[in-house]
Amino acid sequence: MSVSKVPVCFERVALVGRFASPGIAEPLAKIAAFLAARGHQVVIDAETAEYAPIAGHATAAATDLSRNADLAVVLGGDGTMLAIARQMAPFDVPLIGINRGRLGFLTDIPLARMEVALDAMLAGRYIEQRRTLLDVAVERAAGDREESLALNDVVVNRGSLGSMIECAVDIDGRFGYVIRSDGIIIATPTGSTAYALSAGGPILSPQLASLLIVPVAPHALTHRPIAIPDDAQVTVTVLHGRDAGAHCDGQAHYTLAEGDRVTAKRAPFRARFLYPEGHDFFAMLREKLHWSATPERITGAGS
Amino acid sequence: MSVSKVPVCFERVALVGRFASPGIAEPLAKIAAFLAARGHQVVIDAETAEYAPIAGHATAAATDLSRNADLAVVLGGDGTMLAIARQMAPFDVPLIGINRGRLGFLTDIPLARMEVALDAMLAGRYIEQRRTLLDVAVERAAGDREESLALNDVVVNRGSLGSMIECAVDIDGRFGYVIRSDGIIIATPTGSTAYALSAGGPILSPQLASLLIVPVAPHALTHRPIAIPDDAQVTVTVLHGRDAGAHCDGQAHYTLAEGDRVTAKRAPFRARFLYPEGHDFFAMLREKLHWSATPERITGAGS
Amino acid sequence: MSVSKVPVCFERVALVGRFASPGIAEPLAKIAAFLAARGHQVVIDAETAEYAPIAGHATAAATDLSRNADLAVVLGGDGTMLAIARQMAPFDVPLIGINRGRLGFLTDIPLARMEVALDAMLAGRYIEQRRTLLDVAVERAAGDREESLALNDVVVNRGSLGSMIECAVDIDGRFGYVIRSDGIIIATPTGSTAYALSAGGPILSPQLASLLIVPVAPHALTHRPIAIPDDAQVTVTVLHGRDAGAHCDGQAHYTLAEGDRVTAKRAPFRARFLYPEGHDFFAMLREKLHWSATPERITGAGS
Amino acid sequence: MSVSKVPVCFERVALVGRFASPGIAEPLAKIAAFLAARGHQVVIDAETAEYAPIAGHATAAATDLSRNADLAVVLGGDGTMLAIARQMAPFDVPLIGINRGRLGFLTDIPLARMEVALDAMLAGRYIEQRRTLLDVAVERAAGDREESLALNDVVVNRGSLGSMIECAVDIDGRFGYVIRSDGIIIATPTGSTAYALSAGGPILSPQLASLLIVPVAPHALTHRPIAIPDDAQVTVTVLHGRDAGAHCDGQAHYTLAEGDRVTAKRAPFRARFLYPEGHDFFAMLREKLHWSATPERITGAGS
Repeated sequence: MSVSKVPVCFERVALVGRFASPGIAEPLAKIAAFLAARGHQVVIDAETAEYAPIAGHATAAATDLSRNADLAVVLGGDGTMLAIARQMAPFDVPLIGINRGRLGFLTDIPLARMEVALDAMLAGRYIEQRRTLLDVAVERAAGDREESLALNDVVVNRGSLGSMIECAVDIDGRFGYVIRSDGIIIATPTGSTAYALSAGGPILSPQLASLLIVPVAPHALTHRPIAIPDDAQVTVTVLHGRDAGAHCDGQAHYTLAEGDRVTAKRAPFRARFLYPEGHDFFAMLREKLHWSATPERITGAGS
Repeated sequence: MSVSKVPVCFERVALVGRFASPGIAEPLAKIAAFLAARGHQVVIDAETAEYAPIAGHATAAATDLSRNADLAVVLGGDGTMLAIARQMAPFDVPLIGINRGRLGFLTDIPLARMEVALDAMLAGRYIEQRRTLLDVAVERAAGDREESLALNDVVVNRGSLGSMIECAVDIDGRFGYVIRSDGIIIATPTGSTAYALSAGGPILSPQLASLLIVPVAPHALTHRPIAIPDDAQVTVTVLHGRDAGAHCDGQAHYTLAEGDRVTAKRAPFRARFLYPEGHDFFAMLREKLHWSATPERITGAGS
Repeated sequence: MSVSKVPVCFERVALVGRFASPGIAEPLAKIAAFLAARGHQVVIDAETAEYAPIAGHATAAATDLSRNADLAVVLGGDGTMLAIARQMAPFDVPLIGINRGRLGFLTDIPLARMEVALDAMLAGRYIEQRRTLLDVAVERAAGDREESLALNDVVVNRGSLGSMIECAVDIDGRFGYVIRSDGIIIATPTGSTAYALSAGGPILSPQLASLLIVPVAPHALTHRPIAIPDDAQVTVTVLHGRDAGAHCDGQAHYTLAEGDRVTAKRAPFRARFLYPEGHDFFAMLREKLHWSATPERITGAGS
Repeated sequence: MSVSKVPVCFERVALVGRFASPGIAEPLAKIAAFLAARGHQVVIDAETAEYAPIAGHATAAATDLSRNADLAVVLGGDGTMLAIARQMAPFDVPLIGINRGRLGFLTDIPLARMEVALDAMLAGRYIEQRRTLLDVAVERAAGDREESLALNDVVVNRGSLGSMIECAVDIDGRFGYVIRSDGIIIATPTGSTAYALSAGGPILSPQLASLLIVPVAPHALTHRPIAIPDDAQVTVTVLHGRDAGAHCDGQAHYTLAEGDRVTAKRAPFRARFLYPEGHDFFAMLREKLHWSATPERITGAGS
């Protein structure tokens, strides 16, 4: 985490909204007008514009947008940010997330306070966090290979038959262990507060250079989440399982057969998230996990 | 759980407040006046009266109070209710709990709504729940024996040296297992939402005829909470541990030496709790555990 | 659990093997010969006989077998026993399980000790455990209804898209809570040591009259396993989820759409399992969960 | 982890045994003879020599031993290694651990294979792991300050009264959160497989530059283990708790009063552990956690 010293000029600002979300046009137009009034050149994401046409601004397809934007402002929830971050990260475009509903981990500026927050941030008063992404390769026993990125996690898991799958986990090409479970999550620190947390994983500080391997409902009770350095490469091979699949950020899906392998390693670039000054990881945890509330356990301890 | 059919006449009503709690006198006086105005004979718990003298009402020591009251109204939190329930249960006195602060599991009537709630309940419109207590015996290797009651739980655990203790757990006099851990909780369904929940135990419905055995930080990762029928007797024997102790409801404490045994079984009587009509266990869980709130897990699943 | 007083004459003994398991014919023939030599009338399950023809004994289809057998001897693992128990339980046929490989919870007689064990049990020296089954109904929003039995559990869970599903849980027709998760397990005490244990549930004593509701990877961190009396009825309604399914004992599968409901309640009959004298639940836990081994936690505590 | 290229000459070898362990003298004498025969100068730890006198070798007090040894060979379990590592780490003395009983995480050479293993290692064929230690400071509200080292963990926890304590956790001097619990563990990767694992923490790879904060039986169900970079400083302040204590590696104990603070940060030096070539972290996990055994979950999944 670093506080920028020199105000940066974000000349061209890409504007992206949650695709096909009802009522997205009005707040998007408001943000576009605000940015234009401040002298920024606003370019609307073409897919967003299709659903929410906003007059008076250029539009550009995703790839052009990524290549040419100095900044992207994203209106939506964490899911939208995951998708945009995977798209923009290779082009080093910083992202600002504005949420319309409840506080997101990646989108922590409420729409209602958008103007004040953006005003300060566009003047250079922001905190930048660079978040690790995973380079994910799905390699078929047959020889095919597909690649994807993940900001939260890649999950290898059982499908609709509801039976456990058996997988081998290798670390840096060296055998780690065999595990029978509903699935295996390989998560970044960003993803540690997503699905991995539900499956019993720990919270990783965004600054920790770590990958997290979390089993989901493991058959053997002694299997536990494992954190390893993020320069390691993790390979999950499906040994048994008729209907396994792999999922990147819950958004890109692959069907897996026995013998197929999913490999995850740290991508060569990172996603760049800009937060308002004062942004604090533990403050967010306190709010999201109700740690600030009066203690949640219940009977008998009180009075 | 049963809804009473015939309005019961609670002629003599014992009134008990949280001992030595600041500001307890005024609300207690208010409740006393309300009860007296409704024609009930109010008797103030002697210990309560010492700290919160209320003119115009008889006082009685705890034992007399238990023997002669038709009902006890308790102002305080769940901790106070635990203490009063252990005291009154052998005498079959029903209890109504009024809380001054946050909602308790056993004390779910807020002081602000006391009059409306009591009015209905004293007219017979209430739900009665009978809750199991534990008969706890602490037997010394030397031959001594002490007894206590517990409404939530009896805990056998390590002391201030911070090292694990090793215990044997017997069920109905038959060897169950040996376990090394920070401690072992034997809980009633009432206690399942207290300390046992923090230690990873399940929630037991108040109606379930079960005792719950929950290890705290067990050395072996395959030790898990176990629920057994509540007509079983559980014995925990300290095998190794220099500073073990036993604790009933976190309120009665016993020092244990190696060889000492703690036995818990269902007491022959139950605590009687009266709740307003409409009281619902799952509604309370939803409120206390924030299940009604928007989902608590965080990144990336949304939008 | 009850020890039989009067030796029962198991005149007709059904013999069932793991379907299509390689090498099953020889041990089955050995058991058949043993039983016949002891004077029992042996009837081979027709499906078993198809894969493992055994000369000299009658065969019967499953339904006839269930109607007419005084006892069923099952060679296989717990999975086989689950299937046979669901089939035989409505007809009150007691079951003896013989395993060929590792100790099963339901099949605890190793093949190598089959003769000694059966000899004693057929002479009336056995322990009988009656295990609760679930009557499961899958009710479609469209009005269809299918029914099944489950000895371990019924699971409502996500399918191959890998996204959480949102369900409402009702207890006895009364709203309990809404939960977002990978799935919800409704388990019997028998099932508490199967998938429910992997998902973080407690162990329920076979004698406990309880149903267990265990969430799998719940979104909200405060959702926990809940045990309720087994005369309650649990209904899980799929609120959101494009690819949900229901699974009874991992063996009977149903695709679920939004609005579909799965209801589980205690079946009117129980499965009857016969164990050798001396059978002990905690002994089995100790062996299966390595509690008898030297403690499994690792660094630094020792020496 | 690095494989040494150049054989190192370990001229002076310190020999340390588990203090006052019965029967330690004979195997110690055997190791001493083996080392002397190989041409090493053996110096016996004075405290060890007191209980296990071994003729023909010099003895030295702990501090001298640390200052002058090129290598220390330790006979005992992980507990012994923890103590010796804290003592030797500031002096950069590498350690070889030999266990007499069960495999330890830090002591993985069985006594029976001592000669073969030592022979290769003393010839330079070993793997060296440098393990982080914690610099722990206990600061009293009154102003006193005590310091200690920890290789596994420092634990701040409740004492013999069995009640929760309330603590504030600060990271790098910035407020993190308040938590009510049995205790808080701050662990190194080495300690992640010790007490922290029992309390529900993840396994950290020895190479991960991380500190782990694990709550023990937290009152609020949403508190979870947190991993942070190991250049961070963690401070735990006791807010409420009448009998709190701090414990380093379970071996150095401090009584804490309300207002007292315990601070942990990475020590400026690391402990040096030498392992035989082929040493592998996951192989050790597989053995210690029974991952190599047939799957441990139980009913119904099989056959």
